[in-house]
Amino acid sequence: MADRPLEDPSSMTHRTASDALSKHTRPRPPDDGLRRVIVEGASPEVDGGRYPAKRVLGDDVVVECDLIADGHDAIAGRVLFRHAAAASWQVAPLVPLGNDRFRASFVADQIGIWEVTFEGWIDAFTTWRRDTEKKKAADQDVTVELLIGARLLSEGAARAAKDAPGVAALLEDAARIAADPKRDAAERFAAATSDLIVRAMLATPDLSPANATRYDRTLRIIVDPVLARFSAWYELFPRSSGEPGKHGTFADVEKRLDYVAGMGFDVLYLPPIHPIGRAFRKGPNNTLTAGPNDPGSPWAIGAAEGGHKAVHPELGTLADFERLVAAARSRKIEVALDIAFQVSPDHPYVKEHPDWFVQRPDGTIQYAENPPKKYQDVYPFDFACKDWKGLWSELLDVFLFWIARGVKVFRVDNPHTKSLRFWEWCIGEIKAQHPEVLFLAEAFTRPKLMYALAKGGFSQSYTYFTWRNTKQELEQYLTELTRPPVAEFYRPSFWPNTPDILPEHLQHGGRPTFLQRLVLAATLSSNWGMYGPPFELLEHVPRPGAEEYIDSEKFQLRSWNLDDPQSLRDAIALVNRARRENPALQQTRRIAFHRTDSDALMAYSKRTDDFGNVVLVVANMDPRHKHGGWIDLDLAELGVRPGESFQVHDVFSDARFLWNGPRNYVELDPALFPASLFVVRRKVRSEHDFEYFL
Amino acid sequence: MADRPLEDPSSMTHRTASDALSKHTRPRPPDDGLRRVIVEGASPEVDGGRYPAKRVLGDDVVVECDLIADGHDAIAGRVLFRHAAAASWQVAPLVPLGNDRFRASFVADQIGIWEVTFEGWIDAFTTWRRDTEKKKAADQDVTVELLIGARLLSEGAARAAKDAPGVAALLEDAARIAADPKRDAAERFAAATSDLIVRAMLATPDLSPANATRYDRTLRIIVDPVLARFSAWYELFPRSSGEPGKHGTFADVEKRLDYVAGMGFDVLYLPPIHPIGRAFRKGPNNTLTAGPNDPGSPWAIGAAEGGHKAVHPELGTLADFERLVAAARSRKIEVALDIAFQVSPDHPYVKEHPDWFVQRPDGTIQYAENPPKKYQDVYPFDFACKDWKGLWSELLDVFLFWIARGVKVFRVDNPHTKSLRFWEWCIGEIKAQHPEVLFLAEAFTRPKLMYALAKGGFSQSYTYFTWRNTKQELEQYLTELTRPPVAEFYRPSFWPNTPDILPEHLQHGGRPTFLQRLVLAATLSSNWGMYGPPFELLEHVPRPGAEEYIDSEKFQLRSWNLDDPQSLRDAIALVNRARRENPALQQTRRIAFHRTDSDALMAYSKRTDDFGNVVLVVANMDPRHKHGGWIDLDLAELGVRPGESFQVHDVFSDARFLWNGPRNYVELDPALFPASLFVVRRKVRSEHDFEYFL
Repeated sequence: MADRPLEDPSSMTHRTASDALSKHTRPRPPDDGLRRVIVEGASPEVDGGRYPAKRVLGDDVVVECDLIADGHDAIAGRVLFRHAAAASWQVAPLVPLGNDRFRASFVADQIGIWEVTFEGWIDAFTTWRRDTEKKKAADQDVTVELLIGARLLSEGAARAAKDAPGVAALLEDAARIAADPKRDAAERFAAATSDLIVRAMLATPDLSPANATRYDRTLRIIVDPVLARFSAWYELFPRSSGEPGKHGTFADVEKRLDYVAGMGFDVLYLPPIHPIGRAFRKGPNNTLTAGPNDPGSPWAIGAAEGGHKAVHPELGTLADFERLVAAARSRKIEVALDIAFQVSPDHPYVKEHPDWFVQRPDGTIQYAENPPKKYQDVYPFDFACKDWKGLWSELLDVFLFWIARGVKVFRVDNPHTKSLRFWEWCIGEIKAQHPEVLFLAEAFTRPKLMYALAKGGFSQSYTYFTWRNTKQELEQYLTELTRPPVAEFYRPSFWPNTPDILPEHLQHGGRPTFLQRLVLAATLSSNWGMYGPPFELLEHVPRPGAEEYIDSEKFQLRSWNLDDPQSLRDAIALVNRARRENPALQQTRRIAFHRTDSDALMAYSKRTDDFGNVVLVVANMDPRHKHGGWIDLDLAELGVRPGESFQVHDVFSDARFLWNGPRNYVELDPALFPASLFVVRRKVRSEHDFEYFL
Repeated sequence: MADRPLEDPSSMTHRTASDALSKHTRPRPPDDGLRRVIVEGASPEVDGGRYPAKRVLGDDVVVECDLIADGHDAIAGRVLFRHAAAASWQVAPLVPLGNDRFRASFVADQIGIWEVTFEGWIDAFTTWRRDTEKKKAADQDVTVELLIGARLLSEGAARAAKDAPGVAALLEDAARIAADPKRDAAERFAAATSDLIVRAMLATPDLSPANATRYDRTLRIIVDPVLARFSAWYELFPRSSGEPGKHGTFADVEKRLDYVAGMGFDVLYLPPIHPIGRAFRKGPNNTLTAGPNDPGSPWAIGAAEGGHKAVHPELGTLADFERLVAAARSRKIEVALDIAFQVSPDHPYVKEHPDWFVQRPDGTIQYAENPPKKYQDVYPFDFACKDWKGLWSELLDVFLFWIARGVKVFRVDNPHTKSLRFWEWCIGEIKAQHPEVLFLAEAFTRPKLMYALAKGGFSQSYTYFTWRNTKQELEQYLTELTRPPVAEFYRPSFWPNTPDILPEHLQHGGRPTFLQRLVLAATLSSNWGMYGPPFELLEHVPRPGAEEYIDSEKFQLRSWNLDDPQSLRDAIALVNRARRENPALQQTRRIAFHRTDSDALMAYSKRTDDFGNVVLVVANMDPRHKHGGWIDLDLAELGVRPGESFQVHDVFSDARFLWNGPRNYVELDPALFPASLFVVRRKVRSEHDFEYFL
């Protein structure tokens, strides 16, 4: 050994520094290097924090993150949250879930934007307590540990001194006892780790910049009124609500409110109510020439009588409209307006702001087209015109105009053909002033564009439900919609039909298909809507070759026999009542699909977070044949223990069945009713030993 | 109609502005509102861009993003990429994959950090061309469209004018023809849309701020030497490489290089080579008292002879070490050093920098412990001491010292007990100067902490492979490791044993288990390593009650009979040769598991991106019994067409089988060899109509 030359470490250090770093200054560690805790994996976070997640008033907002640090020290953390209008943060402790994951929750007790971030830190006192307990349990001497504990307690006291002098005194006392060599170790440790002291130390963490890490992003959560999560929409054409052959009015719609309320709807959605253009007006069944008495399409907006801030004269006055809004609200129904940002050639904007439209080289204004199709009755706005800021401001003003007249819910027509940036700005500005206002995006387009609109601010969104008919299609689609990331920002609204869409299965499937689609829409999704009266009156004849209604109200007045004995109004009322009575149906995230041994039978359950309410839906997907089959229930999803008997109560047939175990038989005859909506009731033993179903 | 009062839209505008916005200034749209394209969903992106993704030199780096805009206009985009040292961006066009997803790729032809971002824009010319073609196909008049096209061409010419005047002239010519009313429409359109013009327009996109969106983040990709992705490590204790009974030296290790190279390894990893402390030195089998001739643990670093920058005198000199490094490199083997940031009480740092360690209240230095266990022979550094910047800089300097002596690969001991922030800084600084240097993290700890170390800079990581023994465990683990996000930043290294771990299955399973673990480690993961000679010599006796070797080299010299006829050296050489010959085994991402009808048989395939090389491994997981069974191959993963015959050639037995269809029988007798490593060869028909297997 001695014959080998020894290295001189200090000289080597200098040599290394010079030869490896000759062209560099010696790197210096970052000033914030001492922060050991890494905060990541925050949830709910949409696109790395670019967009807010969505919740509703009263929600228990569950937030999570990973807190990771080297070694085995105890880590603690807290969530910081506040309504964006609040000056200071509220805090709640993060609770460890295991595997370095932490969770907290808070109640969103105010609508608007909330901000959330996290802090994590090394909890030296808990680490010390845990390790010292282990040493004591192994009968090791802990004299030095007690001195360390005393120092930690003194540091805690110093932190508490300013805001909680009483706590500080308590901790100083404990520190003194822990450090007192005249007492025995057990007494000293007990004093340092009493429940009171532990709670005091947890309440006085070391949040110094060297010990605590703040998450480097602020999550945003947009909290909407409950209606955003749970709503049933009824769409009707006001002009068809009058006496047969006469143009209906707002007053006529007012008379129909009880009918709509009776079916259990809480949003009444009206197609555009503005003056209708005359140039290139469409005739019945979308023909190119209108007769003198043809009313035209409500989406060809604007005439000499006014534009987006005016009311079509035949419907009544602005005052009539405001009275309708108030009358609806007294029945707990919100009137939703259709905002379609396009104009007829007769719209006042065309004369006042020709620069808001694309000018073609021949001096004409560019009409809407989907080549080779032409829509000469409609001019789209040019969202990138020279005066785009003026245009955008005016369109924002259209919303504000109707909000000032009491409207809180808007259905936006074809938002995907207008700039995404416009919507993000427009909806953001409106919600900053009117956080109660909701927007439904009527976009049937590419999936990522539909999601982009939702991220950009739309409260609810139309979906592909209208064309998802088989069990496999629906299970796959619901799985996508009800899980993160989509579930965080996209609130689906399921519509079996719209004035634009009479889907093929409704054309051919008869009453069982109408009932099946009603039940699926209203129970798969907590937001649903239908276009009536054609839906409840089983209208099913298409314009030949099209997926559209023949003699559509879009182009002509219709008169409806609401008292038709075939009407589905009672079934609709039953479904909407079940939705109101079962909180499990008032949300779209907690859904589970159950295996059946027949592809014709689809089974799914929904539940509240706490299993306080559980429903099970079984639907016969075949409108023509009776099907029976066995369902393999995932009992855990029903909150039922293995071996426990439970009752299922069908709200449609009022039948009750006593089931036990996962495998149960169901039979559904579409000629009677194509679905069962079971409320699941667990057996409960009362204090008097009397069993009943909760 | 006339009896209803008409609204005056202009007066209403003002009223709205005043009543809805009375307390606000009228909101103004954002200045960048015209950028219609949204760029999101970038890949590969780790934690929203916080950490770099990992690739190796020569990789075709595939990058993707979503480009989303309203409406139906054509969208185009490009990726911008550059080595971080380069001044300007290179670009490549993004190719649409459908569903608004776009992809590009570039070859990483230089190691170091690369930066990547994206741009997307509305392609007005392509939109115009597409729509005008549809109108022409429908025999519509396109006179006005031709004037619009001429304007787009002129705008393109203006953009090209500065950098490509020839292109500009070409586009101006086309614009003139397109606008010429004296020519016929077909000629005008053809001139505006010739291949040459289309290419010129695509090469001259409108990248003005109003039309093009730059992604708001820059992805980083760290490009390492190929060794980071594909390596076989052999660990040995130099002190046991000498004559029996004598302390081995670097010169002895040099003599063993051909043995190591013969088995096909390319990294030779040495436990710490520094002077070993004497205070509290451990004796054989980790006993607390060492005899005068006991060599102690190499991980008790530092003595009077020096510390982390010195060589243990009995091993030789620094010059001897440098000669070993060079001799290894001449055999294409890199010497990897073990960097363990902890010291023995005799380390020079303890005297020179007592402030770098935790001082206890009684004046002693805190030794390592895992209560109630004590490791009095080892002091950990206090990474948060007052002079933490001095400490961190010195530790960085340790790496630089050995890099200056030729070391390019480090195995870092227990990095998870040192600050994550330290590693991120230290590795970042080293790689900024020496991007070729690689770091293997020896962290067996909580999964998120292991992942955090990899995100923070470690090139490779030890894994739980050592304790994953059943088919189900391995399939689940590999699925986690080989998919994003983990696969983007975590390069697993699979070790069947280490000096610290003699896993239970090796204690009891005999030779078949050793062979099975060899094949699994070396074929499931493209990075693997073993601790020899105990592994190839089937050492399997544990220290009683522990998962460690009895008479471990960690505490005493051992002598090994490398020529033992039972040695696995030939099998190891066979496996490593198969890895070199089959590129499919040189990566860990493209793996597929195939169903077998026996839980004792595990089957998986690996393939190159282009299916140019495909291997299929079938392993008998039961070391005691012969098992046969049917495998349901996913033929698509093998690149084999349905109905196509293919040959599988077992590199272990040299047997060849002709298979057809997905279902094939395999039988494996562990007493012979517990696995087959099939190279899959598809039948190819030569130009002379002679069939052979490629």
